[in-house]
Amino acid sequence: MDNKQIITVLGAGSWGTALSMVLADNDHEVRIWSHKQAQVDEINDLHVNSHYLPGKQLPKELTAFSDLKAALENTDAILFVIPTKAIRQVSADIVPFIHGKPVIIHASKGLEQGTHKRISEILIEEIPEEKRNGVVALSGPSHAEEVAVKDLTTITSACHQTESAEYVQSIFMNDYFRVYTNQDIVGVELGGALKNIIAVGAGALVGLGYGDNAKAALMTRGLAEITRLGVSFGADPLTFLGLSGVGDLIVTCTSIHSRNWRAGKMLGEGKSLDEIVENMGMIIEGLSTTKAAYELAVQKNVELPITTAIYEVLYNNADVKEVITELMNRVGKNEIE
Amino acid sequence: MDNKQIITVLGAGSWGTALSMVLADNDHEVRIWSHKQAQVDEINDLHVNSHYLPGKQLPKELTAFSDLKAALENTDAILFVIPTKAIRQVSADIVPFIHGKPVIIHASKGLEQGTHKRISEILIEEIPEEKRNGVVALSGPSHAEEVAVKDLTTITSACHQTESAEYVQSIFMNDYFRVYTNQDIVGVELGGALKNIIAVGAGALVGLGYGDNAKAALMTRGLAEITRLGVSFGADPLTFLGLSGVGDLIVTCTSIHSRNWRAGKMLGEGKSLDEIVENMGMIIEGLSTTKAAYELAVQKNVELPITTAIYEVLYNNADVKEVITELMNRVGKNEIE
Repeated sequence: MDNKQIITVLGAGSWGTALSMVLADNDHEVRIWSHKQAQVDEINDLHVNSHYLPGKQLPKELTAFSDLKAALENTDAILFVIPTKAIRQVSADIVPFIHGKPVIIHASKGLEQGTHKRISEILIEEIPEEKRNGVVALSGPSHAEEVAVKDLTTITSACHQTESAEYVQSIFMNDYFRVYTNQDIVGVELGGALKNIIAVGAGALVGLGYGDNAKAALMTRGLAEITRLGVSFGADPLTFLGLSGVGDLIVTCTSIHSRNWRAGKMLGEGKSLDEIVENMGMIIEGLSTTKAAYELAVQKNVELPITTAIYEVLYNNADVKEVITELMNRVGKNEIE
Repeated sequence: MDNKQIITVLGAGSWGTALSMVLADNDHEVRIWSHKQAQVDEINDLHVNSHYLPGKQLPKELTAFSDLKAALENTDAILFVIPTKAIRQVSADIVPFIHGKPVIIHASKGLEQGTHKRISEILIEEIPEEKRNGVVALSGPSHAEEVAVKDLTTITSACHQTESAEYVQSIFMNDYFRVYTNQDIVGVELGGALKNIIAVGAGALVGLGYGDNAKAALMTRGLAEITRLGVSFGADPLTFLGLSGVGDLIVTCTSIHSRNWRAGKMLGEGKSLDEIVENMGMIIEGLSTTKAAYELAVQKNVELPITTAIYEVLYNNADVKEVITELMNRVGKNEIE
């Protein structure tokens, strides 16, 4: 694959925009779609995305669309970077406009409410097989703000079909954006989704006044918790030791850029779910993923102490201080399981 | 073990002092030994350790000794918290003063230069079997500065003999200092020692201007590297997923309190080994551990790309920017091994 590809990016949030910048930098034709006309105009006219990537200049070659049909014409690949809750609707919406057999990629991190499905499962259900050439998850330790300034980033391209994972590797790979393939899409998607819950917990600890020692203990137990649930769904435990597992967990729990961590910090400071959502002005996937993962754990009979604690605070009005204190008093108990 | 124990702490650095504070808080008789008379006097007269724990008030019950014989009289447990390079000499020095069979504990993190031995191996060689009741390693994500202010900390007590590990658990355990036992002392000691190398690397990245995405990638590969060397010595790979493995790695690579990280940052900024050592004024175990681990890896034929890179910069005058750039370009290559 040496030639220029046409790639449609669905979603013009921070991450969709940053990934579009990488693809444009690699000389592909990149069309970024947003349902917000003002944002489309801003990208096309001023080459900025002021709300989601303030201060960053976008490449002039990057074109924005509000019309799905036009954005999808003759496209070689479709990249979903929209909130989890919008994936099913948008994937159904695009089906009439898909001609040919594009590679379907997603870089969203969550689980569907109610069904608890992974994003690739939703995409496979909504987009008929004859209209897609593989469904690939792109996930790893990758703050959009750093990718946008070409800081070195490593990321995993995951798909059961190696050729599709390698196609995604080939369109994104460059000097500062290093892409590695993995066949375990179940593990990669669950690692990306579930680590947001641990980041909310890490933020809550800081909000409550705990220090770095306690945060490291929580992250250690969080990795075990993520792995436990992942393995119950057939994921390879080694995936959780890779970039999309422990790598993403580290960056999300320790970086000032992390929205989930910031939401958790507000939770620790005593703010309610509604106040946090209102305050952040962006989707916080970790909050809804907590609910889905909690319900999954009950179904599967898997013990997830951190997820359960965050769930009780967010959705059951439990006292954050009481719940986190109790959690931390048991957090190291099963040092080796 | 309900009764008051006599515990001799060898070494009055930050960590030795913080651990002594925990033991004194648990109502044991704690004797802290230092070869610096001024430090001994300061602890006894002013109840502070101004160089190593500035601003912290020590418990009045904590008594300091410059005389080894007096410090060791009738002691139930001896805790080594001195630099790795001093372990062999001091353990030989104390043998004549040991009466009875104390539990030997250490909380140092390194490998002996030349022999590449773990600290428990040195202690077993130097202290005759009839003068010790088990050798226990205490290790985990635990910045001294946080322990000294009673921030919640979790830590592993590791020994082949469960009773000795449990004894150490019982003398330290309280509300804010949670101790969990593990039989895999090889894994616990190697995790604690080797993570300092990765922290030097993480600091070097920051010194060179890399961001959080790159740091998370390095830490992910660092965990794999530590595990690889550990397993070649018979450690349980699961130990590296616990508090003394990934937990300690996280806290050392991401916290402002970490000396190894700060030393690495100076390295990334172009300072030489000599300049760093002079500048820090405290022992940086990661610098000498890099040498020992590099030599071990050559002997064992284990690939340690991060350790090798740091070694080349520290001991072979390689250019830090060149070496780290090359390292980062290959850092994600073996996503699953």
